[in-house]
Amino acid sequence: MQKIEGGATAAQGFFAIGIAAGIKKDKKDMAMLYSKVPCAAAGTFTSNVVKAAPVKWDQDIVYHQKTAQAVVMNSGVANACTGTQGYGYCQETAKTAAGLLHLQPDQILTASTGVIGQQLPMDILKQGIHTMVPMLSDSLAAGSLAAEAIMTTDTVKKEVAVEIELGGKKVVIGGMSKGSGMIHPNMCTMLAFITTDAAISKEMLQKALSADVKDTYNMISVDGDTSTNDTCLLLANGLAGNPEITEENQDYQDFKKALNYVNTYLAKHMAADGEGASALFEVKVVNAKSKEQAVILSKAVITSSLVKTAVCGHDANWGRILCAMGYSGAQFDPEKVDLYFESAAGKLKIIEDGVATDYSEETATRILSEKEITAIADIKMGDASATAWGCDLTYDYIKINADYRS
Amino acid sequence: MQKIEGGATAAQGFFAIGIAAGIKKDKKDMAMLYSKVPCAAAGTFTSNVVKAAPVKWDQDIVYHQKTAQAVVMNSGVANACTGTQGYGYCQETAKTAAGLLHLQPDQILTASTGVIGQQLPMDILKQGIHTMVPMLSDSLAAGSLAAEAIMTTDTVKKEVAVEIELGGKKVVIGGMSKGSGMIHPNMCTMLAFITTDAAISKEMLQKALSADVKDTYNMISVDGDTSTNDTCLLLANGLAGNPEITEENQDYQDFKKALNYVNTYLAKHMAADGEGASALFEVKVVNAKSKEQAVILSKAVITSSLVKTAVCGHDANWGRILCAMGYSGAQFDPEKVDLYFESAAGKLKIIEDGVATDYSEETATRILSEKEITAIADIKMGDASATAWGCDLTYDYIKINADYRS
Repeated sequence: MQKIEGGATAAQGFFAIGIAAGIKKDKKDMAMLYSKVPCAAAGTFTSNVVKAAPVKWDQDIVYHQKTAQAVVMNSGVANACTGTQGYGYCQETAKTAAGLLHLQPDQILTASTGVIGQQLPMDILKQGIHTMVPMLSDSLAAGSLAAEAIMTTDTVKKEVAVEIELGGKKVVIGGMSKGSGMIHPNMCTMLAFITTDAAISKEMLQKALSADVKDTYNMISVDGDTSTNDTCLLLANGLAGNPEITEENQDYQDFKKALNYVNTYLAKHMAADGEGASALFEVKVVNAKSKEQAVILSKAVITSSLVKTAVCGHDANWGRILCAMGYSGAQFDPEKVDLYFESAAGKLKIIEDGVATDYSEETATRILSEKEITAIADIKMGDASATAWGCDLTYDYIKINADYRS
Repeated sequence: MQKIEGGATAAQGFFAIGIAAGIKKDKKDMAMLYSKVPCAAAGTFTSNVVKAAPVKWDQDIVYHQKTAQAVVMNSGVANACTGTQGYGYCQETAKTAAGLLHLQPDQILTASTGVIGQQLPMDILKQGIHTMVPMLSDSLAAGSLAAEAIMTTDTVKKEVAVEIELGGKKVVIGGMSKGSGMIHPNMCTMLAFITTDAAISKEMLQKALSADVKDTYNMISVDGDTSTNDTCLLLANGLAGNPEITEENQDYQDFKKALNYVNTYLAKHMAADGEGASALFEVKVVNAKSKEQAVILSKAVITSSLVKTAVCGHDANWGRILCAMGYSGAQFDPEKVDLYFESAAGKLKIIEDGVATDYSEETATRILSEKEITAIADIKMGDASATAWGCDLTYDYIKINADYRS
């Protein structure tokens, strides 16, 4: 497996574009993704009871249609809590794009992100689609424009691509995502769009995606708030010409490994670019009794406001980490825990068997002042482990969210 | 029932004191509470797997001893994650106080709050007990000094007292509490000490307390972090001379109602004084299918970082409230929800059947700019309800917590 340039247009036959349609002020706010041939489509969606209209629309397509061929995306307005009118707007969006692309509306997925509760400005949206269709391009630059257009409070665009060989054929998996606030995915992340030219059945595609989101998007959190719009779509158009994957053979394992790389990359970059974040905070729980236990413990730590503010202050306030593990709901023996901090500046054992070692606060602060910090908790109960990614909680998070709508 | 002056020393026979012993710099940091006769003692404690040494010490006494007669408290150091040495310090504390008060050590409860992981400075602690015992006083002022001494990042001391009549006798219930950060009690709050001169059996006392913490301390959250030290102690010395309460009779109901007033008062004041908070945020879920559903929904809303920052910005970003209800884990129909904001500045219907009403943003902002704000969600499924209390998330929360230890 090799990392290559590009994102959503890195795989053969995928076209994209991103423009400033006028939903937001002076910023890109609409994007399209299109495959020149029909794709097997897999998707995972928010577990929130309050589901945005485009989530419902996409679920209808992913669960009931054999293929899909395009995605229309917008930022600025989430089209959530918008009732039947909002769902009607998804239909209208799909119809408009379908007409121009000579497809059926049920081949057009939609995705929105932004303020909850406002209706989409449909005139602008429809005009945007008319502008975008003739601009669709399979260049890497066009993929980047789309990655930019789906950003909200994100500060950097997130895209990645890898190349593998399956059955003697070069196969590419690429993708883009956005997510900065209201990030605590449960089933999937805010918005992620993965494209591949691999030939793989819809069933195996969904299987690979559903398994992988548990280790990637579902392991990140910015603020503990599970969005109404979380959507991860994976489109496979088969143009690589590899023997179609229809069972859990070696090709499937290789594909899954590459997919995991792409999803992990995008997930980590979303956590690192969490609203107001100044550092990526990775938490590994090792030697756990079960994977489930390790997941519960690691997620409790990255979600704790007190741990996150301590990271912001480069403060080795390890008691807060043990405290978060303690209220997580998972059982363990606090008096057996070893805890380490690690970063580019070094690695330090902070507690041994639940009690502080004679560590140097100065060294700890130096380690915690890096841009990427890892905490490793060894709970000495078995051989399972899990990794979760979060970020620090800073003044800028408050600034961004105290008056998001204005 | 009548609210009266005072706190932990309002009931007959209770003595207290608070001093600056030298654990913290230039601030009160030790307190004692003492009853001139043995008390029936009830307690509820943190559900955190990581339990501070004084929690374990108090559980031993409350669960296995018939009575208790005094409490030694300190702020500055939590005595959590301190191993067997930390538990030994609780024993030593109790022994020192017992010697001076002519009691057995198993009659002395202890409580600590502050930084996790540091050992108590036992010399200072023992000296503090020697200083305090001769100063113990049953004056209301002494109760206030104790309430002050248990504060950490609290900005105001919390104490309250009420008077009721049971069997023709005047009975007083008073109390004090502290709690500002790491507040998301599960079984009980950070530290609360309730005293009463009622005659009531230990069994009925525990029953009343266990039931009431579910509606009071367990319904508040500052930052979602359940502390290692949460402790609520309720001491009843029987000096009021009322017929002892030994069953769920009318006197028990009257006692419980008064206890609920005291606990609600202290709980709300802890939420309002949450670290960095500028407003108390009350959430009522009404017409729910069950109490449990209403509890889950209301707690999800007060716990959401995005809702809390919106309250900080006086921003009627109601979508975040619906979003938090949606990921709470409770089922409901988002398209049936009505939502209101209410404060001293008025009441406003914001959404009806899940969609925004034509409300005035200006009026909404005015309502949300008060010091006490209520959101009421009518989910139209039954007749159960619940109320939870939180606070806004502000720059000062970050300031307080990014470098708490220095």
